[in-house]
Amino acid sequence: MQNRRNEAYSEQQVQELGKRIASSEISEQSFVLKTPKGTRDRNPVQMRVLEQVFGVIQDCFKRHDAVSIETPVFELKEVLTGKYGEESKLIYNLEDQGGELLSLRYDLTVPFARYVAMNKIMSIKRYQIGKVYRRDQPAINRGRFREFYQCDFDIAGNYGLMLADAECLRIIYEVLRDLNLGDFVIKVNHRRFLDGLFSTIGVPPEKFTTTCSSVDKLDKATWEDVKQELLQKGLLPETVDLIGHYTQIAGGAEVLDKLETDPRLANSTDIHDTLREMRTLLDYCQAMGIVSKLKLDLSLARGLDYYTGVIYEAVLIGFNCDDKRQSEKVVASAPERLPSSKKKSKKKSKQEVIEVEEDFGATEGAVGSVAGGGRYDNLVALFTPNSLKVPCVGVSFGIERLLAISEMLARRRAATGDTSDSTIRATETEVMVIVAHKGLIAPRLQLAQELWDAKIKTAFSHKAQPKLLDQLQYCESTGIPLAVLIGEAELQRGVVKLRCISTRKEREVTRVDLPAAIRSELEALRGGAQQ
Amino acid sequence: MQNRRNEAYSEQQVQELGKRIASSEISEQSFVLKTPKGTRDRNPVQMRVLEQVFGVIQDCFKRHDAVSIETPVFELKEVLTGKYGEESKLIYNLEDQGGELLSLRYDLTVPFARYVAMNKIMSIKRYQIGKVYRRDQPAINRGRFREFYQCDFDIAGNYGLMLADAECLRIIYEVLRDLNLGDFVIKVNHRRFLDGLFSTIGVPPEKFTTTCSSVDKLDKATWEDVKQELLQKGLLPETVDLIGHYTQIAGGAEVLDKLETDPRLANSTDIHDTLREMRTLLDYCQAMGIVSKLKLDLSLARGLDYYTGVIYEAVLIGFNCDDKRQSEKVVASAPERLPSSKKKSKKKSKQEVIEVEEDFGATEGAVGSVAGGGRYDNLVALFTPNSLKVPCVGVSFGIERLLAISEMLARRRAATGDTSDSTIRATETEVMVIVAHKGLIAPRLQLAQELWDAKIKTAFSHKAQPKLLDQLQYCESTGIPLAVLIGEAELQRGVVKLRCISTRKEREVTRVDLPAAIRSELEALRGGAQQ
Repeated sequence: MQNRRNEAYSEQQVQELGKRIASSEISEQSFVLKTPKGTRDRNPVQMRVLEQVFGVIQDCFKRHDAVSIETPVFELKEVLTGKYGEESKLIYNLEDQGGELLSLRYDLTVPFARYVAMNKIMSIKRYQIGKVYRRDQPAINRGRFREFYQCDFDIAGNYGLMLADAECLRIIYEVLRDLNLGDFVIKVNHRRFLDGLFSTIGVPPEKFTTTCSSVDKLDKATWEDVKQELLQKGLLPETVDLIGHYTQIAGGAEVLDKLETDPRLANSTDIHDTLREMRTLLDYCQAMGIVSKLKLDLSLARGLDYYTGVIYEAVLIGFNCDDKRQSEKVVASAPERLPSSKKKSKKKSKQEVIEVEEDFGATEGAVGSVAGGGRYDNLVALFTPNSLKVPCVGVSFGIERLLAISEMLARRRAATGDTSDSTIRATETEVMVIVAHKGLIAPRLQLAQELWDAKIKTAFSHKAQPKLLDQLQYCESTGIPLAVLIGEAELQRGVVKLRCISTRKEREVTRVDLPAAIRSELEALRGGAQQ
Repeated sequence: MQNRRNEAYSEQQVQELGKRIASSEISEQSFVLKTPKGTRDRNPVQMRVLEQVFGVIQDCFKRHDAVSIETPVFELKEVLTGKYGEESKLIYNLEDQGGELLSLRYDLTVPFARYVAMNKIMSIKRYQIGKVYRRDQPAINRGRFREFYQCDFDIAGNYGLMLADAECLRIIYEVLRDLNLGDFVIKVNHRRFLDGLFSTIGVPPEKFTTTCSSVDKLDKATWEDVKQELLQKGLLPETVDLIGHYTQIAGGAEVLDKLETDPRLANSTDIHDTLREMRTLLDYCQAMGIVSKLKLDLSLARGLDYYTGVIYEAVLIGFNCDDKRQSEKVVASAPERLPSSKKKSKKKSKQEVIEVEEDFGATEGAVGSVAGGGRYDNLVALFTPNSLKVPCVGVSFGIERLLAISEMLARRRAATGDTSDSTIRATETEVMVIVAHKGLIAPRLQLAQELWDAKIKTAFSHKAQPKLLDQLQYCESTGIPLAVLIGEAELQRGVVKLRCISTRKEREVTRVDLPAAIRSELEALRGGAQQ
């Protein structure tokens, strides 16, 4: 009835809007209804997972005395110029419509450095979660998007050796522990150690960078492939063999012992300085209870463009995707703080993206890098060349990948009937006000209002004459655990029926006691779900 | 000591980066370090206020069974084409770098309609908070930005007359009540009523839109100005007089009585239909306990481009900026859902933006529109002309203005020494681990770890040898209420000193009891602050 009325009202409006479309150059049918290439909408269930994952991460950052800042989605083009090397071609520029030339931010690190420099900040511990933009060839099913979230935590300031660095590792530990995505390991290396090593074993200084980018591929390519690449780059065979030898070294503090007593490395001050630094880092991580999660890994490179000290990368190792019958696909983008890690993701690799689908089940123990970072002491100085230096260290979480894995786990829990899990619901609604027979609009609204005022999350049907069955089905399909049924007779007696959707049990409650009764039912349901 | 080392390490890196800059066309000194015109960073304190305001608003949306979605920051250019009339020139386009033509979103409503159409959704109640972009002439101190937040709540679906509309008004009520920014009123009108009225009193149909946009100025301009404008637009003097007569009408249900019995309007079916609709709306608002906040106001127009039914706008009335000595400035952008409201904000007006500064104190009882919306039943159909219609009604909060007012109130509370207010702090940190004498790095980290694991928000100094006074001052300046002091002697005895920063009282606590002791101190401080 109302709908017909609404339609009648809008006839003229429809015509007006139709005219407007006709007068524009684009006809209403001439384009496909879609989001831009490499972007996507997030639906309500995905948003709930996002909210929960962001909540865990923010709680961790706040526990560590971090502040948060926000920067614009676009920056002056010059701010980004010269910061990303070859990757600059992937920057989105805005059309020159007069005025300043602007670009969409490519990461959160350069805007952070701009913020620190611009505000002459000498020390700050900040986090920022925001979308960044890369005009890369998208690979949606492999998790590479053109618009994706980054989630960064950085500590800027002139601080004691390894103190801020150790806290960043602790941050990675806490976030991955609290997200509960299975076991993980944090690989650690030192950029200056790699420089010292290369220098010592005969890599010419001008080939440090290119050697590093070959080594960087070792987590996905075989040594044989990397070896050939290094030989093609003109390194001597004995140097290449030594690279092969050292980049296989990985482990705990014993690695440091071994390297300190390595006669080949005995004469390099750089190497021994960095080894002492790494030992300090391990000591601090020991004090913070995370040393068992660390693995010194000399094959970790993370590029050379940017970092000046410790570098690290966290990998999920306990994440087994063994149920190949589920036709799920986890789409996730790699944590990309750096141009160099960008290059990585261009390489096809089963390990790189966790996929669970009908015909391409992920291998058991599939590994995904979900966080990475390191020390970068010179970026802020690029914006303030004549000022005091502001050294920085930070970590960036591969939030799209963490979200994708969390979504998949939530779907899996829902599929196995684990009702204690609420992540798969799109809302948190606790109760629906249901009318047992026709109409009762004002009483419906009045009861809803009483519940809202009692801070109870309450739904009601917007239909004038909703069917009882439809209302109950709405509860079931959206996971609302309780319903309050009202009818004329109950209203006159000042009572309502409180119904548990899953058990279908109903009991009469006086209206004044309703909020308390709902709370106790919810409490009981939560208790039952936990058992 | 460590700093010098860090510097030494980065020499080569600095040179490399310097070279990169030199090789680019832009020299490092050639641009001013700033954010793009019309944009800004948000600092940590502003972010805390934002988080709290968003929290209140999201709580309200969730209490009402709403889901949330997210859409990309840019859309295909065609999606936005033909939706904003003259305002289209304010859309930011991305540079054509090959591939699709893209534009930054101008509001959240058109992307929402695109989402509903694309996913063939027949009903949804969703909220979305996100930034939108308008290449308008910015007026930062009057609160007009080129990048600003919108916060939208919309109900789409074929529903009973006025049921969803009434819930939108309830949403406005709850948000403004819970944000605690003083008294407010929600002005309500009906777009079809205005059409019927104009038709009846002799406005030619082709002049409805332009008449409406003149009427729309009545909240800022005098009637005399609007009258002259209407006469210039060619309306007959007696018609203009009648517009003046009717647009002065405002009030509660008695307005409907008056209009229903108005002999001049007796023959218009449209008018009497809409008056019955308005009465239904008032009935529902009565049931939801908000009718006292509503004011039927026939001068409310909100443009005609878009809306098809009820329209509304909320105004803060209790917001007095009477302390002119405070050199504060509240920058806030008007809630802009519509091109038409955009036009409004071009007009200079004291009422439009709340400003409190040395030489331009806001008048007492300054009024600011902080939310607006209405029914728009035809927008989704623009994307799916051959499908069933999906009627919509929604509200958009003037979130930048709400943030600016909240920031100002927080600063004011802080200035008056109201320590119970925590909004002005940049962090939520509860305790700082402080070393009483040199070093003690590992013990410091170990204690911090114990507190983090106990979910206590804990800071520590990253300096190797921090001074006691510096650490205490850090607590005071950042508002950390408690400190845990450790020294060699205490460590050996398994105790620490727990210090209240404000009272300077210290007591010894055994290490194992520390988390509980901290919690009880925090509880006591909160209790004291509330008294």
